[in-house]
Amino acid sequence: MPNHKGFVLWFTGLSGSGKSTISNRLVSEFKARGYNVELLDGDEVRTHLSKGLGFSKEDRDTNIRRIGWVAKVLARNGVIAITAAISPYADIRNEIRADVESEGRAAFVEVYAYAPLDALVERDVKGLYKKALAGEIANFTGVSDPYEAPENPDFTAFTSEESVDKSVERLINHLAEKGLIS
Amino acid sequence: MPNHKGFVLWFTGLSGSGKSTISNRLVSEFKARGYNVELLDGDEVRTHLSKGLGFSKEDRDTNIRRIGWVAKVLARNGVIAITAAISPYADIRNEIRADVESEGRAAFVEVYAYAPLDALVERDVKGLYKKALAGEIANFTGVSDPYEAPENPDFTAFTSEESVDKSVERLINHLAEKGLIS
Repeated sequence: MPNHKGFVLWFTGLSGSGKSTISNRLVSEFKARGYNVELLDGDEVRTHLSKGLGFSKEDRDTNIRRIGWVAKVLARNGVIAITAAISPYADIRNEIRADVESEGRAAFVEVYAYAPLDALVERDVKGLYKKALAGEIANFTGVSDPYEAPENPDFTAFTSEESVDKSVERLINHLAEKGLIS
Repeated sequence: MPNHKGFVLWFTGLSGSGKSTISNRLVSEFKARGYNVELLDGDEVRTHLSKGLGFSKEDRDTNIRRIGWVAKVLARNGVIAITAAISPYADIRNEIRADVESEGRAAFVEVYAYAPLDALVERDVKGLYKKALAGEIANFTGVSDPYEAPENPDFTAFTSEESVDKSVERLINHLAEKGLIS
């Protein structure tokens, strides 16, 4: 297995923006290259670490902080920790970046999965936007709950304009240029 | 760094039985040998993953399951995950063993830090037993809350009879014999 510094690949983006699709593809890519990689998605962490938490800002922040802590612990042990939760609040994402990087044992890469809200509403793979716009889902990020886009993400995947293949290829090149993978 | 299968070194034992002392020594030993190692103690995990949980059986079980999940995720990525929470209930420890071993990607080693209750009460490093026996601490394991000793631990450290050095030396030999470290 390659001997390398671990890092956190932190996806953020609206529901349906492609976080999970790209993340899952990256897991396969990294495994094929012999890296230890772990995908922490929002739902899995809610099951194992945050049962009982709701979707208020406070509870969302707590859930995201827990994902961040686990990702940090993995990354400082040489693992590529990919997170794929919406993580709507910029201050929490920045707090986690600072925490991950504070020990000098791991890097933090913020990846913005971006598509215009219109495109997501139109695509609406899971039918969630329709329900949210009809008022049937409370606290739906981007519709009835805030989403704070990253001001200066390390990487942006333009998921309504480029293919998954293209996003993955560009992101892998970006990580190689930063010296995080070889 | 040695290429090896990760494992969970799961300590269990009463307060003051030596779990943290031995664990901290092991962290140094493993690091010196080039392993990735992470110590998850009960207090740290309560801060990061389980704030708000109390000390009822249900809340203790939830806390221990969270430690178990993080330990599993670390171990399946080649890390030595050491846990040093009291973990009083046998059924939860066994559940976590089954979960860790289920994927075939990590081993689980239960380590019983054992000293007779009399010895712990007499030593009472933190003065907690005195308070617990006076009824000043509710749900104190071994005094006012149950402790279920492991029936068949993989290793027992006899901490009132042998030195920390001796426990650490025997445990490291045990792990080497099992092929978990070299």
